[in-house]
Amino acid sequence: MKVCIIGSSGHYGYALPEILHNPELELVAVAPGTAGEDMSGLASLLQKKKQQFRTYTSYKELLEREKPGLAVVNTHFHNNASVVKQALRQGVHVFSEKPLALELADLDEIEQLWQEGQSHLTTMLGLRYAPHFYTARQLCSQGAIGRVRLLQGQKSYRLGQRPGYYKDRKTYGGTIPWVGIHAIDWIHWFSQARFLSVLAGHSRQDNRGLDQLEMTAQAFFTLEQEILATVSLDYCRPETAPSHGDDRLRVVGTDGVLDIREGEVFLINSGSDGSQPEGLLDPPDFFADFYAQIKGEGQCSISAQEAIYITRISLLARQSADENRQISLV
Amino acid sequence: MKVCIIGSSGHYGYALPEILHNPELELVAVAPGTAGEDMSGLASLLQKKKQQFRTYTSYKELLEREKPGLAVVNTHFHNNASVVKQALRQGVHVFSEKPLALELADLDEIEQLWQEGQSHLTTMLGLRYAPHFYTARQLCSQGAIGRVRLLQGQKSYRLGQRPGYYKDRKTYGGTIPWVGIHAIDWIHWFSQARFLSVLAGHSRQDNRGLDQLEMTAQAFFTLEQEILATVSLDYCRPETAPSHGDDRLRVVGTDGVLDIREGEVFLINSGSDGSQPEGLLDPPDFFADFYAQIKGEGQCSISAQEAIYITRISLLARQSADENRQISLV
Repeated sequence: MKVCIIGSSGHYGYALPEILHNPELELVAVAPGTAGEDMSGLASLLQKKKQQFRTYTSYKELLEREKPGLAVVNTHFHNNASVVKQALRQGVHVFSEKPLALELADLDEIEQLWQEGQSHLTTMLGLRYAPHFYTARQLCSQGAIGRVRLLQGQKSYRLGQRPGYYKDRKTYGGTIPWVGIHAIDWIHWFSQARFLSVLAGHSRQDNRGLDQLEMTAQAFFTLEQEILATVSLDYCRPETAPSHGDDRLRVVGTDGVLDIREGEVFLINSGSDGSQPEGLLDPPDFFADFYAQIKGEGQCSISAQEAIYITRISLLARQSADENRQISLV
Repeated sequence: MKVCIIGSSGHYGYALPEILHNPELELVAVAPGTAGEDMSGLASLLQKKKQQFRTYTSYKELLEREKPGLAVVNTHFHNNASVVKQALRQGVHVFSEKPLALELADLDEIEQLWQEGQSHLTTMLGLRYAPHFYTARQLCSQGAIGRVRLLQGQKSYRLGQRPGYYKDRKTYGGTIPWVGIHAIDWIHWFSQARFLSVLAGHSRQDNRGLDQLEMTAQAFFTLEQEILATVSLDYCRPETAPSHGDDRLRVVGTDGVLDIREGEVFLINSGSDGSQPEGLLDPPDFFADFYAQIKGEGQCSISAQEAIYITRISLLARQSADENRQISLV
């Protein structure tokens, strides 16, 4: 299958190992998804790997001429939706950066194009394939904590240096859809429940000159079966912290508690007192899973329906924060 | 000063060491605050300590006859407000269990009586005097994390065996005012900001026969200066857990993060990478602080205004959960 990479401003690293090592996959070309997007990092990485590929300045021309079967999309945030739509229109399978879209109208179009076509589609909620989250999810689905009742998700990042397009809501999209989407995904993934309502908040105070970027955000969700969930997001992690991010998820069930933090999983239930971390499983490869699904031989963890659903919830949570009001999600 | 203890269903243990060891304080009498309240545990404890005291069956009679200067109030939850009101009416200083009241009308009366009188009043938000919370608060007020921007509080308890009055909202009050009030207090205490709004939720599902008791609850608060805060509460901590409760508070500031968990304080800022817990300070005695305040020689951490304010916010958070709507707190 012919593969292309459009943009190189996101997590193309999820796809690259499998593309380079699976002989069924042929990387034919790359193109920026945004005018002026810096593609040099990806290009030099591919050259180092002795990978042949063509370079286009226009992704539309790339899609037209190369007719790839699969596109990896990760350009500047505000252009991912346009690239995804174009790829879907041409019947290309899409492995896209999250969020799929920064505006609901774009997401609606993506949903319609996906429904009308035959393309497979997923979005890079790749933390589902990180060993600690993958292991915790396996434990949860095996009943280790009984029925899920309450969840608390956290993403905390170092601010570090951010490209200029983080400064503008139109090009960044907001901290809830860019960062919070992972925690929102965990909530749905662990609970297997639909969201009923959200109230969120966010603040741009003390954002060190990053203009419209929200430094802090929180959201409170109600879900089916009276499941409750909170999300807490910040870019306030000090530079001295031992890691870039401090991802956490606490999942409370009728028969136990799962605590995911610092790359480990702690379980308290009738068989475990939580004093030692659980042994971590070795997750499958995200992109290989998606390719297997395309071939009809497997199932990617993040279905197209879920990719669209989680993006939608994230955009509505952002709207709730913008408008300071509870929003129904049904 | 003559001291009495009314009820023995709560945290009279906060007061007892100082009462027994400070020669200025004379424990004159005890009485139940609720008809039929079991006072035997307190009585046998006092007898073991060779403490002389009179026993009344009516706290009103006790207050009338003994004319104590100070009352420790901790009866069944729904009667604390009545006892507090009666004590305030008679000009007695009050060291009361939390929440001060289960209904806003009672709280309003308490506020008015306190304003009209000369009594000192506080409520047993005693975790302010626990070494880990006390130490973290000192660090915060010394500027260790800059300006507070975001907070996440957690209380998680084992359900264990609960007296019958936990089963009825009228006598229990709800998990948000009984358990959540601590986390709500931490938010105010660390941020020193007023609450603007709350949306909360709670659920009675899977409460193992405890009828109206809420097993899970969460709340999302906005505060002044765009400070955001969440609270997560549950009674789902397994019996196998290494401790009764899993109290946590994460305070995120412009210059660092304070993480309070498992009785320790972890600080990440320019001078600390958070890998080792901070040394814990030795807090003053809560009741001794309150008595010093009465004598005009000190300041109890929880002022009467704060005791009333935090109780009010807790009752409004419960109302928000009952009505599933955001409530203004200004």
